[in-house]
Amino acid sequence: MNIQKLKVAIVGASGFTGSELARLLLSHEDVSIEMITSETHVGKPFSDLHPQFFNRLDIPLVSAEEVGSQQLDVIFLALPHGVSMDFVAEWKNSGAKIIDLSGDFRLSSKEVYEEWYNKKHSYPEGFETAVYGLPELFAEKIKGASLVANPGCYPTASILSMAPLFAKQLVEKNSLVLDAKSGLTGAGIKASATTHFSNVNENFKAYGIAGHRHTIEIEEQLGALSGDQTALQFTPHLLPVDRGILVTAYAKVTQDMNQEKLTNIYRDFYEDKPFVRLRNQVPGIKDVRGSHFCDVFPVWDERTQRVIVISVIDNLLKGAASQAVHNMNLMFGLNESQGLNQVPLKP
Amino acid sequence: MNIQKLKVAIVGASGFTGSELARLLLSHEDVSIEMITSETHVGKPFSDLHPQFFNRLDIPLVSAEEVGSQQLDVIFLALPHGVSMDFVAEWKNSGAKIIDLSGDFRLSSKEVYEEWYNKKHSYPEGFETAVYGLPELFAEKIKGASLVANPGCYPTASILSMAPLFAKQLVEKNSLVLDAKSGLTGAGIKASATTHFSNVNENFKAYGIAGHRHTIEIEEQLGALSGDQTALQFTPHLLPVDRGILVTAYAKVTQDMNQEKLTNIYRDFYEDKPFVRLRNQVPGIKDVRGSHFCDVFPVWDERTQRVIVISVIDNLLKGAASQAVHNMNLMFGLNESQGLNQVPLKP
Amino acid sequence: MNIQKLKVAIVGASGFTGSELARLLLSHEDVSIEMITSETHVGKPFSDLHPQFFNRLDIPLVSAEEVGSQQLDVIFLALPHGVSMDFVAEWKNSGAKIIDLSGDFRLSSKEVYEEWYNKKHSYPEGFETAVYGLPELFAEKIKGASLVANPGCYPTASILSMAPLFAKQLVEKNSLVLDAKSGLTGAGIKASATTHFSNVNENFKAYGIAGHRHTIEIEEQLGALSGDQTALQFTPHLLPVDRGILVTAYAKVTQDMNQEKLTNIYRDFYEDKPFVRLRNQVPGIKDVRGSHFCDVFPVWDERTQRVIVISVIDNLLKGAASQAVHNMNLMFGLNESQGLNQVPLKP
Amino acid sequence: MNIQKLKVAIVGASGFTGSELARLLLSHEDVSIEMITSETHVGKPFSDLHPQFFNRLDIPLVSAEEVGSQQLDVIFLALPHGVSMDFVAEWKNSGAKIIDLSGDFRLSSKEVYEEWYNKKHSYPEGFETAVYGLPELFAEKIKGASLVANPGCYPTASILSMAPLFAKQLVEKNSLVLDAKSGLTGAGIKASATTHFSNVNENFKAYGIAGHRHTIEIEEQLGALSGDQTALQFTPHLLPVDRGILVTAYAKVTQDMNQEKLTNIYRDFYEDKPFVRLRNQVPGIKDVRGSHFCDVFPVWDERTQRVIVISVIDNLLKGAASQAVHNMNLMFGLNESQGLNQVPLKP
Repeated sequence: MNIQKLKVAIVGASGFTGSELARLLLSHEDVSIEMITSETHVGKPFSDLHPQFFNRLDIPLVSAEEVGSQQLDVIFLALPHGVSMDFVAEWKNSGAKIIDLSGDFRLSSKEVYEEWYNKKHSYPEGFETAVYGLPELFAEKIKGASLVANPGCYPTASILSMAPLFAKQLVEKNSLVLDAKSGLTGAGIKASATTHFSNVNENFKAYGIAGHRHTIEIEEQLGALSGDQTALQFTPHLLPVDRGILVTAYAKVTQDMNQEKLTNIYRDFYEDKPFVRLRNQVPGIKDVRGSHFCDVFPVWDERTQRVIVISVIDNLLKGAASQAVHNMNLMFGLNESQGLNQVPLKP
Repeated sequence: MNIQKLKVAIVGASGFTGSELARLLLSHEDVSIEMITSETHVGKPFSDLHPQFFNRLDIPLVSAEEVGSQQLDVIFLALPHGVSMDFVAEWKNSGAKIIDLSGDFRLSSKEVYEEWYNKKHSYPEGFETAVYGLPELFAEKIKGASLVANPGCYPTASILSMAPLFAKQLVEKNSLVLDAKSGLTGAGIKASATTHFSNVNENFKAYGIAGHRHTIEIEEQLGALSGDQTALQFTPHLLPVDRGILVTAYAKVTQDMNQEKLTNIYRDFYEDKPFVRLRNQVPGIKDVRGSHFCDVFPVWDERTQRVIVISVIDNLLKGAASQAVHNMNLMFGLNESQGLNQVPLKP
Repeated sequence: MNIQKLKVAIVGASGFTGSELARLLLSHEDVSIEMITSETHVGKPFSDLHPQFFNRLDIPLVSAEEVGSQQLDVIFLALPHGVSMDFVAEWKNSGAKIIDLSGDFRLSSKEVYEEWYNKKHSYPEGFETAVYGLPELFAEKIKGASLVANPGCYPTASILSMAPLFAKQLVEKNSLVLDAKSGLTGAGIKASATTHFSNVNENFKAYGIAGHRHTIEIEEQLGALSGDQTALQFTPHLLPVDRGILVTAYAKVTQDMNQEKLTNIYRDFYEDKPFVRLRNQVPGIKDVRGSHFCDVFPVWDERTQRVIVISVIDNLLKGAASQAVHNMNLMFGLNESQGLNQVPLKP
Repeated sequence: MNIQKLKVAIVGASGFTGSELARLLLSHEDVSIEMITSETHVGKPFSDLHPQFFNRLDIPLVSAEEVGSQQLDVIFLALPHGVSMDFVAEWKNSGAKIIDLSGDFRLSSKEVYEEWYNKKHSYPEGFETAVYGLPELFAEKIKGASLVANPGCYPTASILSMAPLFAKQLVEKNSLVLDAKSGLTGAGIKASATTHFSNVNENFKAYGIAGHRHTIEIEEQLGALSGDQTALQFTPHLLPVDRGILVTAYAKVTQDMNQEKLTNIYRDFYEDKPFVRLRNQVPGIKDVRGSHFCDVFPVWDERTQRVIVISVIDNLLKGAASQAVHNMNLMFGLNESQGLNQVPLKP
């Protein structure tokens, strides 16, 4: 693969996901960034939007119309949900594999999508071919996929926190509570009251209580793992930090449990997964910042007979951009870890 | 009461609670701060420790030994747990009423204390006279008390989030999960790895999973309200902010429920409680910063058949200093709100 | 004055200055808030815009057109520059005194305004009657004023840092450098790339280098103090905090100097100014947060023969709202400190 | 060089500089980390101290005594000043080249060191062989050095901000003012009142006014560049962020100047320096976070006839660890940029 680099396009340059993809792909040995698109900034250097790239990636932005004009190996869609679907439909036969970072193909069907996203889906055929791009669960399927739906940030941390127990059908039905906390970049780059510094700094609040659309994405995946439908409680909160998601998961179990047994279940499940770290002390979001790691820490509370699991990721990386690169590595038979070995940036 | 001001001592000047007490009492019309003690800073002006008081409260710090030498009306103990108990024993017959901000008399008995605090209790008689100083539940008892155990910060926010449902015995046994998040001042003024800026800033983590000592304080109070023992799950997390606690409470209920019914239960319960605000939108910790308010927001999730309640307080105020002043107002027959009407400082 | 409270209107409710004015005036014993205006939120409770006021100040917002309909004593204009001037012209004969928190009448003339604000001035007559509302310099004039131009936040901290030396003509011509740093609220409540959390948090940058419009406001005031025109260097920077301005001022002096002499000059100048604190240790912005104080700390560097002065204020208070209340107190013969004695909120 | 990797020891594992060195060296293709030392944590995995390295660098820490026992190519001293000097003396003939990140050999002589550091120097001979490790100025000397004194963080940003003008003797004698602001990691990992979250967060203050020891380091280097002694004003401030230094430099010049001329002087000087970026817009510290870049932005103010230069670096990288790696690359004839091409982590 070193002889012929993968030709890559990033569609959607203005957001955080687009810039993080560019940062990772720029230092990926097997990749050549052929184009980055932005409809509102055509002609501007990419580094004008993201000055951290000054002198490192100054290529001019082009319109997404240019994507069809060139032979590409991979197209990354770093677009809002509802926008990706049309591009997927347009480029599905272009010869390039597509990794969609939006929510447009993460769910099981048009019907579920339209119920939770409250929006018409224009390309329902995509649900049949799309593979859910969580490498810890679906590596084999991803290897053969031409369209990957990159998981949401909250679902990534949530699913990985509980997958070992669901896979063994150990979770008491409908007992799962996921109390999730995310850094502000999860709200995107758009200026609004929500993203105004003075509303975030020194503040902390919940949002989307009892109805956030990531709920169904988690329910579908954990339900599939256990072979049984599940209804879970998911509450996101906004942290006054740039990056990071921490999920505190609470569940009742269906068998006798103790700490050793619990730890072993997690160790076995994640044994050969290079980016999930089973921690021996409580992890913080800064332990994974700037990296592709998901750190997991399961605790058995004998007193309350409940499992508590902490999981942490960098929402822009394992929750978006580095997960997309991981999927690309799998889809093209590269070393799974290529370009993803950054040690977290701390402090 | 305006003619003769209450003579007050603050024992323990160096911490955040001591300085916040001083700030509130300094502008309380019916109070005169007679002395502030600190064993390690005797002779220094109070404002040397807390420069915000420069030119406003520069009185020299004295040793706690001075407390006995003067006729006082109230003694506030702003000391670590394990230290307060000896002072309470010493000053119980001094003629002054005592408000203890430590954990030494919050629990029901010596036995419970020693189990959860892992420490000998030197003055078990105190448990018999101490009143738990949560005015929303125990105003009448507090009025007659000579020793008040000021509640913990997490317990204040936690109990107020669920009291209306426990008082009506509506909570399914052992179903309660309290996912709590606190600003760093909850960890105190002592320099340590825990309080080092670089470990807190841009970080977020849980601690005390499955064993934090505030658990039993909450269990005892909620259990008493419902008349039935309860085992609850309490998980504290550390927020990268100075002030504020937010509790996200999850519970199953024992009766048919809907949003209107739930809201009414909370409205009725807090109708004449001036410092609990039943909010009509999701509250953030900054909505109460610098104030004595506890904002509460109950949600019924029809899909999961679960109650979710958000409550927020300023941990140094409603969770400590202003609650102590509230208790003092009640103990001395003052207007309950005297000195406590600060609008939150936002942003 | 206690019998008849001052009837007050706040024009411009949506910003930080408007809400801080409301907070201060709500607890001011001699004031009754009669109306708060907002053109875009007419009819909404004030607390909908600023939830910290929930249950404390829920009055419905009205249009500025209502201001003329009622007998008022004071009108506070918490509006952007360029908007205030028309209201001043309209209400100048209404019987109410006007305190304008915008930049519209802070400078010496229409010509200077138009050069630095790059905007036509519609009411140049205002410059003749407006008094510059810095109580430490102009208390007597303010007492007789019907229109006060409340100073800018940077100019307040900057002028107070150097006024004692300029008043004694001790500063070497054109040697003054003011390196200023402000919290984000100085940029206002409007959502933009500038105020997006991720551009501010963990960041720090300069702006308006060599051309910020507060430069001329400072130059005019310091020049007037010394009786000689001065050209100074002013560079503002954006701090990742909500509140606070710190100015580091550097100047060469025209006489022999030493630390004692310098300290005495400042002590004499601020002797009877209750809200300027001459500090004996280096002040931080948190030492004054939430208060009306300006803390000043002058240092003589014998090695470089230069004076360095640090000054800190809360930009929303001494830099805006509390300064406006101070001016109101003076204009109506109230106790200068009425409603302004808050101890800083720290931590 | 790929065949035989450089054998490297990091002496001093517990601080931020030690962990950042490990992070950079771990992904440096030509390096093998042979040992990391810590006297207080011997035997513990390195990742116990710095959990971001969990599963990536878990080697046990050893005593510094082990350093002599093995053939090494490079020894990095990540120690406090006053401690390094003895190790340099001990290992100077060990065959390994030494890169000292402390302040022990940055100045011109024992006498200057003892005056500014107020401490005896035990190995004055080191001043004769030590090369000041600022690659932009001394690349050739560094290539031949066996002992490199890695520059201080403030001096790196300060010197690079003004070097082009000093090298051309364009700065008016004694006119330079350096107003510097640093993130908290500059204060080190030790827990103290200074590093307590609540003293840093939402705060900002100056320190070391008129006497900080980095002053002389900057004066010596800029003086050497111009061939004339200089006395400059240096004032550091503490920013409530983890990483980053921003210097705002003010100077009078000795020749006619304009913006174009100024820009050209900087462009020429930094033309072939890959890690200094001459920016075309005002840089913030987040534009360089996590990278080896120094961004520089010079402005000519025609009105005040003064040059203002902004420079930004990551204090832990270009101000410490990555600069040390850069020096290593030069000392061993490697590609200058090897292991240093990280794009800044933003947001």
